Amino acid sequence: MELYGGTMYAWRLPAGDFSNQDVDNEPAHSEPHQQRSKHISTFHGECEERKKISTFQSSVTNFSNIYESDLLPAWNGEECTEHFLHEVVTILLSYIKKAYDRKSKVLDFHHPHQLLEGLEGFNVELSDHPEPLEQILVDCRDTLKYGVKTGHPRYFNQLSSGLDIIGLAGEWLTATANTNMFTYEIAPVFIIMEEILLKKMQEIIGWEERESDGIFSPGGSISNLYSVLVARYKRYPEIKTKGMAALPEIILFVSEHSHYSIKKAAAVVGIGMDNVIAIKCDERGKMIPSELEGNIIKVKRQGKIPLYVSATAGTTVYGAFDPLANIADICEKYNLWMHVDAAWGGGLLLSGKHSHKLNGIERANSVTWNPHKLMGVPLQCSAFLVREKGLLQACNQLCADYLFQPDKAYDTVYDTGDKTIQCGRHVDVFKLWLMWRAKGTGGFEILINKFLELAEYLYKELKTRNNYELVFDAEPELSNVCFWYIPPSLRHIPKGPDREKRLHQVAPKIKARMIEEGTTMVSYQPLGDNVNFFRMVFSNPATKKSDVDFILEEIERLGKDL
Amino acid sequence: MELYGGTMYAWRLPAGDFSNQDVDNEPAHSEPHQQRSKHISTFHGECEERKKISTFQSSVTNFSNIYESDLLPAWNGEECTEHFLHEVVTILLSYIKKAYDRKSKVLDFHHPHQLLEGLEGFNVELSDHPEPLEQILVDCRDTLKYGVKTGHPRYFNQLSSGLDIIGLAGEWLTATANTNMFTYEIAPVFIIMEEILLKKMQEIIGWEERESDGIFSPGGSISNLYSVLVARYKRYPEIKTKGMAALPEIILFVSEHSHYSIKKAAAVVGIGMDNVIAIKCDERGKMIPSELEGNIIKVKRQGKIPLYVSATAGTTVYGAFDPLANIADICEKYNLWMHVDAAWGGGLLLSGKHSHKLNGIERANSVTWNPHKLMGVPLQCSAFLVREKGLLQACNQLCADYLFQPDKAYDTVYDTGDKTIQCGRHVDVFKLWLMWRAKGTGGFEILINKFLELAEYLYKELKTRNNYELVFDAEPELSNVCFWYIPPSLRHIPKGPDREKRLHQVAPKIKARMIEEGTTMVSYQPLGDNVNFFRMVFSNPATKKSDVDFILEEIERLGKDL
Repeated sequence: MELYGGTMYAWRLPAGDFSNQDVDNEPAHSEPHQQRSKHISTFHGECEERKKISTFQSSVTNFSNIYESDLLPAWNGEECTEHFLHEVVTILLSYIKKAYDRKSKVLDFHHPHQLLEGLEGFNVELSDHPEPLEQILVDCRDTLKYGVKTGHPRYFNQLSSGLDIIGLAGEWLTATANTNMFTYEIAPVFIIMEEILLKKMQEIIGWEERESDGIFSPGGSISNLYSVLVARYKRYPEIKTKGMAALPEIILFVSEHSHYSIKKAAAVVGIGMDNVIAIKCDERGKMIPSELEGNIIKVKRQGKIPLYVSATAGTTVYGAFDPLANIADICEKYNLWMHVDAAWGGGLLLSGKHSHKLNGIERANSVTWNPHKLMGVPLQCSAFLVREKGLLQACNQLCADYLFQPDKAYDTVYDTGDKTIQCGRHVDVFKLWLMWRAKGTGGFEILINKFLELAEYLYKELKTRNNYELVFDAEPELSNVCFWYIPPSLRHIPKGPDREKRLHQVAPKIKARMIEEGTTMVSYQPLGDNVNFFRMVFSNPATKKSDVDFILEEIERLGKDL
Repeated sequence: MELYGGTMYAWRLPAGDFSNQDVDNEPAHSEPHQQRSKHISTFHGECEERKKISTFQSSVTNFSNIYESDLLPAWNGEECTEHFLHEVVTILLSYIKKAYDRKSKVLDFHHPHQLLEGLEGFNVELSDHPEPLEQILVDCRDTLKYGVKTGHPRYFNQLSSGLDIIGLAGEWLTATANTNMFTYEIAPVFIIMEEILLKKMQEIIGWEERESDGIFSPGGSISNLYSVLVARYKRYPEIKTKGMAALPEIILFVSEHSHYSIKKAAAVVGIGMDNVIAIKCDERGKMIPSELEGNIIKVKRQGKIPLYVSATAGTTVYGAFDPLANIADICEKYNLWMHVDAAWGGGLLLSGKHSHKLNGIERANSVTWNPHKLMGVPLQCSAFLVREKGLLQACNQLCADYLFQPDKAYDTVYDTGDKTIQCGRHVDVFKLWLMWRAKGTGGFEILINKFLELAEYLYKELKTRNNYELVFDAEPELSNVCFWYIPPSLRHIPKGPDREKRLHQVAPKIKARMIEEGTTMVSYQPLGDNVNFFRMVFSNPATKKSDVDFILEEIERLGKDL
């Protein structure tokens, strides 16, 4: 285990040794001390020089002899820290501008082995020795250069896209505050903001204020996991101590178009994926209520316990809304927990025009809603909301003495960390809170309506072009639009297995070329009997109708010879 | 569900409407259009004006008439975006300087109801209407003002403290890149960096390169949860589909000083907390191997299956290291999965002087190691490492077609998202990668050795002062030091229930005053038979020996009348 010699790295002293405010009796390292002193005087000359000539815009700085140990908390590290962070921000601002610029590429693709081997001096390897700050800045530039511009107006690859400037500022502040959500003690403002946001979201869902609860979690899958945990605990509180051995065979229901996270949750929590029943959907991707009821009855006849339904409000691929009110009726009739996975579609609740698509959500026992999707909040930001107050706490709390001391000086009901399955928890609320302040609820409405207008525009465009086929012909309910591009070589082949087989290869080939050229990004997948098709999705505030035209022309350009 | 009127918020148009590159046929809102046009011309005058007078340092900007919809992607939003982000960074830099300044308070404490009611104009409520950017900047200042400076040299409240400037730059860049770890496609550089870091950490643990695996997760509790999942799946792969019903009664072992997350994990995964046996520790907080063996034998006699041991390398309160090599022997003998929770102590592996305390970790089946603790990486950054390659993938994968298409143009082994229990996953690796580049492995060693020197200094100081008592008298193995302050009123009371009862109230009272005055922060808790004691812990690079002196004097000052 003697991996590193004890003094091997002593050529650089611990930061903060040369303070004149505070003479510490540090262990002596005479030779490095001399080196360091010399180094510091050079550095201060440089910093003074920089101060004279530099405005924020300037990059006339020389960091080639400066190391991270010269930054705060080093003695006199303030100025250097400021200069360094300014340089970083200059790099980030330049990236932000490029990300919004249609003339720039969405990505500069390289294969994994190319990145691993090192590209034009971009070396990802880690060494025992420190690199100068000059190299660190180069590393920052390279990291951005070879990444994907998810804020680019023509990036459509995932449900989360765009780069909201207020959200970004919020995330920079969050990083600077660098605290943890477990207790009010160390995150007072953020804990209060979380409470405010949860209440706002509960109110928008239509729950009464006093009775509901929730938590922000690291993504929709974990939020959905919470729903299974809480539903199971509500019916069988003995699960917490006794485990599944004390429970009868319980069954969860989802639609066949639902997100895979419920199945994953069933595997994690010891219910098992076989005990998740996928209910048939109609052509549009919506769960068929009679199928759900039939399956509940069947399961009961088998002596198993139907426990939980996850209805989806905005499926991942089709953007479909399950009929929530009908499902709520069935859940009430058979006493099932009703969860609504509105990770993707939840944002529609903010639109007077579109919120009716989620009618019935107010009858749910729990809801997943990811502001990092349709509301454009930077990754990540996912809320798990539960109607019954106290359940989340009862299900998850362990009352660790070292965090959740009952004898604190403030109202410890605000130490919300024991509601979670985490201990430390990243602050995901501030960026959302700041965006809400900056946009107002109405600003989100405008944004979301715009995404749906873009989807409608694409849908209508596709109908006018005869080299495209829609996966289903219905006006989009969310911003997803699913379609095939039919290259000329396939246009006159009659529908059937041969055409399907060839069509299945079209989208991957176009996507490969798209990534290679870096002009745009859109996702594809098969689903059920449908071979690989493109799924366009709008959640990027920078996207315009001309970008929709662009991608259709780009797909044709890249695919016409296939 | 008609929560918001469809056009109620139309006084602000969607961003990007006024592009001259791209005339979109947006729905007409004539009145707001006029408002907006007027608004824009005023704004551009302001921005031009600002450009002339502003360097980065200046704050002579007027954002009172500017809204988030004037920022990118708005037409001509570049300049305003840049000015706004500069202002934000100015606020953050001012905060960073204050955080490092011993003359500033660690916190400005207010009770939850005070924050909820609003403080000197700091209003946390959300409205339907947007606030001008001027207000957003005020909100940023206030959020920081009423928060806790976790980077302050005298903040000792949690295992994570300090504010590493390189890590911070890394987090700012991560926020700007705003991508998701599920696929190589959209996070190529970060996926490669994760691979590099995991390999480095595995190598440092002492595992052979080719056989091991891992993932970065949202915190140590989730990493520990992974260990239980993987251990269970390895022995009983049918768990994934059949659930716990298909398994015999399995038992997990931890020490009584272990972190509560293993018990929490047992509750989550359906094993149940009763099936977690807490093994007795010695006075120093280390698991007693013979107690472990005795319990394994007992459990086997009861017909249950001993499955898993979580040994702790650095307990939360005492900083104790379980005897890993002895535990590894027992795990081998009885065929148990050996997990090492090195969330806190893992950093010691980087120190030639201290790494021997983790001897035996190389025999573990899995390890949790949080760089956001001893290595000073900003929150959060936790690695779960597993020795057997492929297990994490087999345990968790669901092969969702819409993300993990097998027909991609690159080697999809790099689409690591299906190894996780999440779907979207925050990029936690970049800040660690950048810090490693900037410090080198040796820089971490220096840092960690310094933390242990500070703990040793405190330990020795405490021994010389007769108003303090150590919880156990042994040189610190990690940077935790546990002690009581004995106020004058208790000094002559003989040890016994009365003194214990009164002593139990001392730490909470001092802590309450500490928070009220905002001069420093340190944690306290009871543990086993020990009434409330202080736990000092060093993980902040800004802390010096004089800060150790300070806290001892501060505790006396605040507690002498108790």
